[in-house]
Amino acid sequence: MPLATKATVKGLEPREVSELGYDMVLGNTYHLFLHPGHELIARFGGLHRFMGWDRPIVTDSGGFQVFSMGHGMVADEIKARPPRAAMGGQERAGKVLAIEEDGVRFRSHLDGSEKLLRPETSMEVQAALGSDLALVFDECTPFHVDREYTARSTQRTHRWLDRCLRWHADHGPPDQLVYGIVQGGVHEDLRVASARAVAASGCDGIAIGGSLGADKEEIYRVTGWATAVLGGRDELRPRHLLGIGEVDDLIAGVELGIDTFDCAMPTRLGRHGMALVPDPEHRWRVDLGAARWRDSHEPIMEGCPCPACAAGHPRGYLRYLLKSRELTALRLLSIHNLAFLSRLMADLRHAIAAGTLAETARALRNGVAPQG
Amino acid sequence: MPLATKATVKGLEPREVSELGYDMVLGNTYHLFLHPGHELIARFGGLHRFMGWDRPIVTDSGGFQVFSMGHGMVADEIKARPPRAAMGGQERAGKVLAIEEDGVRFRSHLDGSEKLLRPETSMEVQAALGSDLALVFDECTPFHVDREYTARSTQRTHRWLDRCLRWHADHGPPDQLVYGIVQGGVHEDLRVASARAVAASGCDGIAIGGSLGADKEEIYRVTGWATAVLGGRDELRPRHLLGIGEVDDLIAGVELGIDTFDCAMPTRLGRHGMALVPDPEHRWRVDLGAARWRDSHEPIMEGCPCPACAAGHPRGYLRYLLKSRELTALRLLSIHNLAFLSRLMADLRHAIAAGTLAETARALRNGVAPQG
Repeated sequence: MPLATKATVKGLEPREVSELGYDMVLGNTYHLFLHPGHELIARFGGLHRFMGWDRPIVTDSGGFQVFSMGHGMVADEIKARPPRAAMGGQERAGKVLAIEEDGVRFRSHLDGSEKLLRPETSMEVQAALGSDLALVFDECTPFHVDREYTARSTQRTHRWLDRCLRWHADHGPPDQLVYGIVQGGVHEDLRVASARAVAASGCDGIAIGGSLGADKEEIYRVTGWATAVLGGRDELRPRHLLGIGEVDDLIAGVELGIDTFDCAMPTRLGRHGMALVPDPEHRWRVDLGAARWRDSHEPIMEGCPCPACAAGHPRGYLRYLLKSRELTALRLLSIHNLAFLSRLMADLRHAIAAGTLAETARALRNGVAPQG
Repeated sequence: MPLATKATVKGLEPREVSELGYDMVLGNTYHLFLHPGHELIARFGGLHRFMGWDRPIVTDSGGFQVFSMGHGMVADEIKARPPRAAMGGQERAGKVLAIEEDGVRFRSHLDGSEKLLRPETSMEVQAALGSDLALVFDECTPFHVDREYTARSTQRTHRWLDRCLRWHADHGPPDQLVYGIVQGGVHEDLRVASARAVAASGCDGIAIGGSLGADKEEIYRVTGWATAVLGGRDELRPRHLLGIGEVDDLIAGVELGIDTFDCAMPTRLGRHGMALVPDPEHRWRVDLGAARWRDSHEPIMEGCPCPACAAGHPRGYLRYLLKSRELTALRLLSIHNLAFLSRLMADLRHAIAAGTLAETARALRNGVAPQG
């Protein structure tokens, strides 16, 4: 599902997102809570009507963004990206002030005001937003903390899960489903225990979060510990892998039994001039801002049926637009990238139905273009 | 016609621009000459194929942007806007070094390199771009120069016109039409003489340029001097008013016998959060970034059939997107503004055909919404 962080998939209209084959988007509770505020969105009849999207919406708990401010580069860590700077060296206006049993005290990155986010607050905000799928409030444990911290944090996350479910049972919109979140860091016993606790909690769906490892191999291993407990494809509740969405991660995740993913990657890459192409050796990416495309008549991707490729723009033109910082290019690449991943996921779904997942996964991993 | 300054109408795809009712766009020779260069665009088969637009393209001569760097705020002056700073006080990387009989020597605003733009260079660049309508190279005389300078400059502009037409006759693409440009500042005798000289030159269409006055009344009076000489509606050659495009200017221009306009206004306003609405008291503009729209369920414009309004987004949502600097809002407002002006021009065309121009102009001026 594409990210509609601030009540819009960046640069696209809702109609376009659904035409690209997407059924759901994910809105960020942290951002919407601070601005424009959930009360305002509720006065518009909820996030669906506010942003003009009539299909399902997932909202996250807000925890990920808050904890990211405190722990440094959580987003980098859970994706096993190399650190961009010394831990905590990045300047941020926002800051975690205290993680307590009751909730998290933090400073808003927008105006520096002090805020308290409790599990109940998160559920209340998500209830006001009126999302179809709400995520419980958890601590997104980073990679650099020790086992003991992770164990204590995971225990607290389970207590927060219970508080979220209790609040939701009493006050939540009756048609809103709630996803629990599995934590436990990179420790097998903690992950397994967390997956069991979440599965037993009575939530409607199960998300896997937190830092999953230092490299892709570890990420898949840790994800597998959780999905094994969650019963593979026999578990009827949907399983979501939080914030993971590179091409090889999607393929591996589906093989491990993950149903849905959310990631800023396809639109963010697009805004940085990167197009997804069937090229595993270069992480399925091509940098269209590179000088070598100056005279290129090649399309973004040969044979791609997406609206951006169908318009027939040569790479040389897109490279010029990117160098000129023209919005048109950022939009075209966002559309192409979303269309690419939409076809990839369709191929994996069809393969599951046909019983050919292993072959399809192998082909896609080897650079066969997704057909959709 | 919308501006495709850098080979794209900002944020929009060619298909969208034509669906909004536009038959032509205007590309800026100055920008395309400096980057990516007309040779590169020619290697792509010309500007049409480079940018994926298969309808007519007008290119300007490049002179306006060059002279804007030298004279300060020419764009402000020809539109009778109050000066933003003391004349010449604005910092610009680019600079006019010398205006000579042969051409204009200037420093590129991109890399500081010295360039010479001659009338023949301008035509050569436009030939390489392959536009359908090329504009001759002229000096865009500013408002603050005296009558004597304007007279000398206008004479030189006529000599440049002849050089342009001569070059084009010898080397220009056979199917490219050439527009002459009427100068003469705000002096009736100079404007009339210039209009006569241009009309007699054998050009295919006639554009009116330069500074037209200190206020709208003067702009219309000066434009009228030129169009009177150009034979009103009996003159078969199209008449274009350069760089003018506010709602009341379009109405007045058409009444004076102008056929086509180009202006960055509709897309630039959109990028600044302004929507065009039938509200003459506020220059047909509403600032959707204003705090008073925070809770507004109003659409951009009641009853507007444009794709942005049809999506049904309330002003409160657009205000939030604008405050969050989301591309989606800039794009929606650009689409709305272009659609508004497209309908306005359609109404004026229909009124001319029906012999009801005066009534239609009066109604539009009084705030009746254009129907299209």
